[in-house]
Amino acid sequence: MKGYVFDLDGTIYVDEHVIDGVPEAISRLKKRGDKVIFLTNKSISRRSDYVRKLNDLGIQVELEEVINSNYITALYLKSVLQPDEKVMCIGEEPLLDELREQGIQLSDKPNDVSYVVLGWDREFTYNKINNAYQAWKNGAKIIATNPDRTCPVQGGEIPDCAAMIGALEAVTGESVFQVTGKPSQLTAQYVLKEVLKMPVDQCFMIGDRLETDIKMGNEAGMSSVLVMTGITTKELLEDSIHKPKHILDSVKYIDQL
Amino acid sequence: MKGYVFDLDGTIYVDEHVIDGVPEAISRLKKRGDKVIFLTNKSISRRSDYVRKLNDLGIQVELEEVINSNYITALYLKSVLQPDEKVMCIGEEPLLDELREQGIQLSDKPNDVSYVVLGWDREFTYNKINNAYQAWKNGAKIIATNPDRTCPVQGGEIPDCAAMIGALEAVTGESVFQVTGKPSQLTAQYVLKEVLKMPVDQCFMIGDRLETDIKMGNEAGMSSVLVMTGITTKELLEDSIHKPKHILDSVKYIDQL
Repeated sequence: MKGYVFDLDGTIYVDEHVIDGVPEAISRLKKRGDKVIFLTNKSISRRSDYVRKLNDLGIQVELEEVINSNYITALYLKSVLQPDEKVMCIGEEPLLDELREQGIQLSDKPNDVSYVVLGWDREFTYNKINNAYQAWKNGAKIIATNPDRTCPVQGGEIPDCAAMIGALEAVTGESVFQVTGKPSQLTAQYVLKEVLKMPVDQCFMIGDRLETDIKMGNEAGMSSVLVMTGITTKELLEDSIHKPKHILDSVKYIDQL
Repeated sequence: MKGYVFDLDGTIYVDEHVIDGVPEAISRLKKRGDKVIFLTNKSISRRSDYVRKLNDLGIQVELEEVINSNYITALYLKSVLQPDEKVMCIGEEPLLDELREQGIQLSDKPNDVSYVVLGWDREFTYNKINNAYQAWKNGAKIIATNPDRTCPVQGGEIPDCAAMIGALEAVTGESVFQVTGKPSQLTAQYVLKEVLKMPVDQCFMIGDRLETDIKMGNEAGMSSVLVMTGITTKELLEDSIHKPKHILDSVKYIDQL
């Protein structure tokens, strides 16, 4: 039995279109008894949204098989917060929901919080930067859901959570305390120990991004698999320090490894 | 005859209060025939606002004696733009006004501009980040008025233009093309050659910030003078690589150098 951790955008689907042959390949892994989970950095959707989308695309999944950076962030905060400590959240509703569902107390008051969470926020404003900065001045630690520079969309790319991180790092003059999504080992260790629960040398990390998927897989000791259906070109691969253990044209061929 | 370039906030005044003895000291310099100008990085006010404020505080100045980062930015753009090239401006009205006054054509269309200017913008939003990013993807160069992390205000500090720069640098993955205000040599050379018009060894740069005022003065070959009326403490001075040539408790004593 092996464990497979799949990225979503650019790996399983592009926008609303599933990549040819992928549902059948996932199905073959499951039929032969392998464990399959899905792991995304995107902080502007809910885990349940991904379950629905994957089911609609012909891939049967349950909620516990889908992990996103919001969920990891909420689990991280649960593990470090003292009772009565509160969190300021700069992000969209799905992130706020996830934190609330995990019982985390939220506040917008800079002098009332011990952590600030930055997620991708399409309603990001100067006032949010200032509010987060004042919380940091009061001693709060700043964490972020994911380090992605941009997110691919129909016809191009738009700024992702790196914009929020960059604004705060420039103002504070220091790096954020923790980035929780891929490529962090927080995420890798959670997936390996709490979800897959198997020896790391039996686990594959499959994705299209070198600096998140492949970096995290390599650093955790998983077999990293780059698929060429997303943002990585041969040129990007040659120039990068993050080298995958395997390269596949598509997840379609995953059961041939 | 000597030339004196004074920073404003923390050097001449703090908030609305002129520093004790400063108007008299400036007056003594002028009376003995020295040239005095004022140079600020702040992009959310007009040069004429500073003339009014200084006059109200008892320091007689003319418009041509006040230089700010908006003005330097507009002059820079005038020098590099081809006819018909347009500029996207992310900033507040005083910056937009300065660009318009210098005859620079503005546009908000990412595919219509060859430069993006970032200034301190208290109405900064995700949509502005995205708009600037799309312009950059289309080949526009990103420049910024000033690199200041924060601006001191009553009771604390608030995020300055570094927030705008940090957001864009994180998303593009590269440094902005040019920062025009202090400590850039654009500003130093403009002040020396176009305003003071004197040999550099007769010119003093006086300010309270090591990484802008003192750095620029030193790099230009001016006599740098740190005043202890602003944000720099003895500890900050000891830890910094930017060492002033002179240290004064206050501009009050400037004519004793």
